[in-house]
Amino acid sequence: MPTDPDILSLNAFDPASGAAADPATAALLARRQANLGPVSVLFYEEPLHVVRATDVWLETQDGRRYLDVYNNVASVGHCHPRVVAAIAEQAATLNVHTRYLNEPTEAYAERLKATLPAALSTLALTCSGSEANDLALRLARTATGRQGIVVTAAAYHGNTAAVSEISPSAFKWGRPPAHVRMVPAPGAGHYGADIAAGFAASVERAIGELDEAGFGCAAFIADSIFSSDGVHADPRGFLKAAATVVRGAGALYIADEVQPGFARTGDAFWGFERHGITPDIVTMGKPMGNGFPVAGLAARPEVMAPYFAEFGYFNTFGGNPVAAAAGLAVLDVIEDQALQRNAADTGRYLRRKLAGLQAGHPSIGAVRGAGLFTGVDLCRDGDPDAPDPQAARRAINGLRQRGVLIGACGRHGETLKIRPPLTFTPDHADQLVRALEEALTG
Amino acid sequence: MPTDPDILSLNAFDPASGAAADPATAALLARRQANLGPVSVLFYEEPLHVVRATDVWLETQDGRRYLDVYNNVASVGHCHPRVVAAIAEQAATLNVHTRYLNEPTEAYAERLKATLPAALSTLALTCSGSEANDLALRLARTATGRQGIVVTAAAYHGNTAAVSEISPSAFKWGRPPAHVRMVPAPGAGHYGADIAAGFAASVERAIGELDEAGFGCAAFIADSIFSSDGVHADPRGFLKAAATVVRGAGALYIADEVQPGFARTGDAFWGFERHGITPDIVTMGKPMGNGFPVAGLAARPEVMAPYFAEFGYFNTFGGNPVAAAAGLAVLDVIEDQALQRNAADTGRYLRRKLAGLQAGHPSIGAVRGAGLFTGVDLCRDGDPDAPDPQAARRAINGLRQRGVLIGACGRHGETLKIRPPLTFTPDHADQLVRALEEALTG
Repeated sequence: MPTDPDILSLNAFDPASGAAADPATAALLARRQANLGPVSVLFYEEPLHVVRATDVWLETQDGRRYLDVYNNVASVGHCHPRVVAAIAEQAATLNVHTRYLNEPTEAYAERLKATLPAALSTLALTCSGSEANDLALRLARTATGRQGIVVTAAAYHGNTAAVSEISPSAFKWGRPPAHVRMVPAPGAGHYGADIAAGFAASVERAIGELDEAGFGCAAFIADSIFSSDGVHADPRGFLKAAATVVRGAGALYIADEVQPGFARTGDAFWGFERHGITPDIVTMGKPMGNGFPVAGLAARPEVMAPYFAEFGYFNTFGGNPVAAAAGLAVLDVIEDQALQRNAADTGRYLRRKLAGLQAGHPSIGAVRGAGLFTGVDLCRDGDPDAPDPQAARRAINGLRQRGVLIGACGRHGETLKIRPPLTFTPDHADQLVRALEEALTG
Repeated sequence: MPTDPDILSLNAFDPASGAAADPATAALLARRQANLGPVSVLFYEEPLHVVRATDVWLETQDGRRYLDVYNNVASVGHCHPRVVAAIAEQAATLNVHTRYLNEPTEAYAERLKATLPAALSTLALTCSGSEANDLALRLARTATGRQGIVVTAAAYHGNTAAVSEISPSAFKWGRPPAHVRMVPAPGAGHYGADIAAGFAASVERAIGELDEAGFGCAAFIADSIFSSDGVHADPRGFLKAAATVVRGAGALYIADEVQPGFARTGDAFWGFERHGITPDIVTMGKPMGNGFPVAGLAARPEVMAPYFAEFGYFNTFGGNPVAAAAGLAVLDVIEDQALQRNAADTGRYLRRKLAGLQAGHPSIGAVRGAGLFTGVDLCRDGDPDAPDPQAARRAINGLRQRGVLIGACGRHGETLKIRPPLTFTPDHADQLVRALEEALTG
C-alpha cells in the first residue's frame, strides 16, 4: 500500500522538461540546479521566484502578487511584524543554548504547556518537527521495549532516517520496512459508515501483525487532520476508538500536530482535541515560530524518563531564547487576533462556497476539512471514487496562472490541499473560489 | 571502549545536590525542572542565569559579566550587529521554504561552495548538524550498499536516532550497536610516534571487523579537531593516511566540520584542509548562522544521486532566506574582520601562555590545539598519563567563580575545552590564563 509515486512529482518542477518564462527566473533556476542539484525540490512547471511576502501574499520578481493558500508555516501571516520584532530584539540581546538558564525559554515552555493537557507536563524543544518525531519514536520504543510503529498509508512525519521509515509518502520506490505497518486513512469509502470502528479495527489488525512478526507495537502515530493522506477531519471524535485500541495493546498514541496544531482546525487549539484524545506524546513544528526553526514535543514525564536514563540528549539550537521569543510572539498573535476563531469561521465559509462550486462541477468529488485546512477531491466522469490527479495538477497550475497558490495531497495526489495562513478572510476565500471555478472550466 | 559515563555529568548541574545561590535564579531553576525535567541539561553546580550577551561576554541576571571561552555557536561574537541586522531585515522581507526560488538561498549556496573543494559541488541545507549527519549516513549507506560506520571512541555527531548510534559520548550506559566500530582517537600515547600510521591501522582494523561481521563499511566519520575526544589537532596531515585506507576499502570519508569548520582552526577555513584531504561528504552546522539554526552538507553529485533516486527529501526550514541571510552575514564578518587570521594568531598566543603555565603546574599534563580550539589535560601527580577529571571539574567551577566560562572533553572528561568566539583577543587570553592559574592554585 505505498503511496502512488506520482504524488511526489505531481506539482514538482521537472528539470528535463520545465523552464522559466522570464530570463531573471531562468538564471536563478540554473544556479539552483547547480547548487542544490539532486536535493532540489521546486514547485510548479515554471518555478516561482519570490522576493517578498506579507500576510497572505507572496510577491515574485516580476512584481506579481499571489494569494497564498498553501503555506502553513507562516501561520500568523508572512513576515508578521510582531514576530519579526520579537526575533530581532531577542537576537540582539541573547541567543545561546539552554545549558544556561534564561527567562524567554521558560516563559515559552509555560505558555506552550498551558495549551496542552496537564498530564503532558514535560517538554523537549528541537529545531524541526522531524527532530521531534525522531525523538518521539525513541521515547516510545524505549518506554515499551517494542519496535513496531503503525502509520497511515500516505503519511508524512519528517525527514530523518528513523522518521523517513514511517513516512510512506517519502518513498519514491519501495516501501517502509517490516516493522512499520500501514493502515488506510479514513475516507475513500475505506471504512463505510462507521469510520471510528473501521479505522480502529484496521489499527488493531496492524498491531496484531506487528505482534506476530515479533516486533510488537511501540506506537501508533497520526496527524489528526491526515494532511498527506488527503485531509480527513470528520466525524469529530472518530480517532478516539483507535486510541483506545492502541492503549489496550500497551502501545503509545503519538499525536503529530505539525499540521493540525496551533489553532489550524478552528475547533480547538490542537487537532487531537477534536477527537477527545489525550495523547501519550504530542509532537509539533512548522507553524510554531512562523518560519523561525522551532519545534518540540510534550509527554508525560514517565514516558520521557526511560530514554533519558540511557542517553544524553541535547539540541544546540532547540528552544534557545530567539526560538522562544518567536514562539511566544506567535502565541500572542493567535490570541490577540483571535485566529482560532477566524480559522473556524473563514474555514466554514470557504467550504460552503466550495460546496456551492461542487454543485455545478462534477469534477469535484468531495470537499472536506476543519478550520483552515480543506481538501477538495478532483475526480473523473463525476465519479467521486475515480481520483483524477492530472486534473489536480491542471487546477494547481491554472490557479497559479490566476494568482493563487495551493498544493495537492492524497494517495494519488488527487486532492487539492488548501491550507492558507490563519489570517485568511472571506474575501480571500471568494478570490480562491472564483479562480478555482475559472481553472476548472478554463 | 565506551566513553566514561562521568563525562556526561562532569560539569552538569545535579538537581539532587545542586542549588542556585540567588533567589531569582533558584526560581527560574525550579521552573526549568518543571518544564523540561528529564531532558534538561544544565551546566555548573550552580547554573548560570544569563540575560544578555555581546561579543565574548555573557551577562547574568545579577549584573555579573563572564568571559565566554566555551561557545563556538556565537562564532563571530554574541549578538553580532551585522548578523542580527541581516536576520531582522530578511525576516521582515521574505521567510519561506525553498520550493520557491529565492535569491538569498542561492547567493549563500554559492558563497559556501566557494569555500569548499570544487568537487563537492552539491549542497543540502538543513536546520541542524544532527540533521546533516543523519542525511550523510544515508547518502553513504545508499552509495556503498553497506551499513557499517567507523567513529572515534568518544565522538559526538548529533542527536537523531541514527546519529546517536555513532555518538559513543551520548551513551550514559551501554555502547553503540554492532555496525558501529570505535577506534581510539589520536593522543594519550595510543599510536606512539607515528600517529598517522597508527591511526590509519586502527581504522583499517575496524573496517576489517565490519567486513567480517557482514556489515561492510559505508563510511568513516571524523571531526578533524576531535572535539569530544579531547582536542587532537597535530601533527597536521595525520588524517590523510586514514582517508587513504577508507577510500581503498571502497568506503566514504565524511568530514564532520560542525566543530572545526568556519575558520576555527586558524590554519584553514575547514578542518580537513589541515590534513590535506578532500572528503566525500562534508557536514557542517553550529557556527554557520551564529545562533540562527542553519546547517547542511556538501558532497559530490554522484554521492548524492543514489539516495535521492529512492527518497524524496525536503527540509522545511533548511536554507530558507533568513537562514541564508544569517549564513551570508557570518561569512562576511569572518572575512571582513579577518577572523581566520585572528584564530591562528590568538590561538598561538594562548597556547604559548598556557605552555608557560604548564611549566609551573605539574597538574597540566598537556596543551594542544589549533587556532581557537585548545585542549588542556589535567593529570594526577604530574603524570600526563593519569587523567584527573575531578581536577577538570574543579578548574571549570573555579574559573566560573573568577568570571570565565569553559567546558570539558576527553574520554574521561579530563581535558579543559577552550573554544571561544573567534573575536577572542590576546587580552582575553591573558585574562583566561590568569584565572586558570588562580583556579589551579586556589
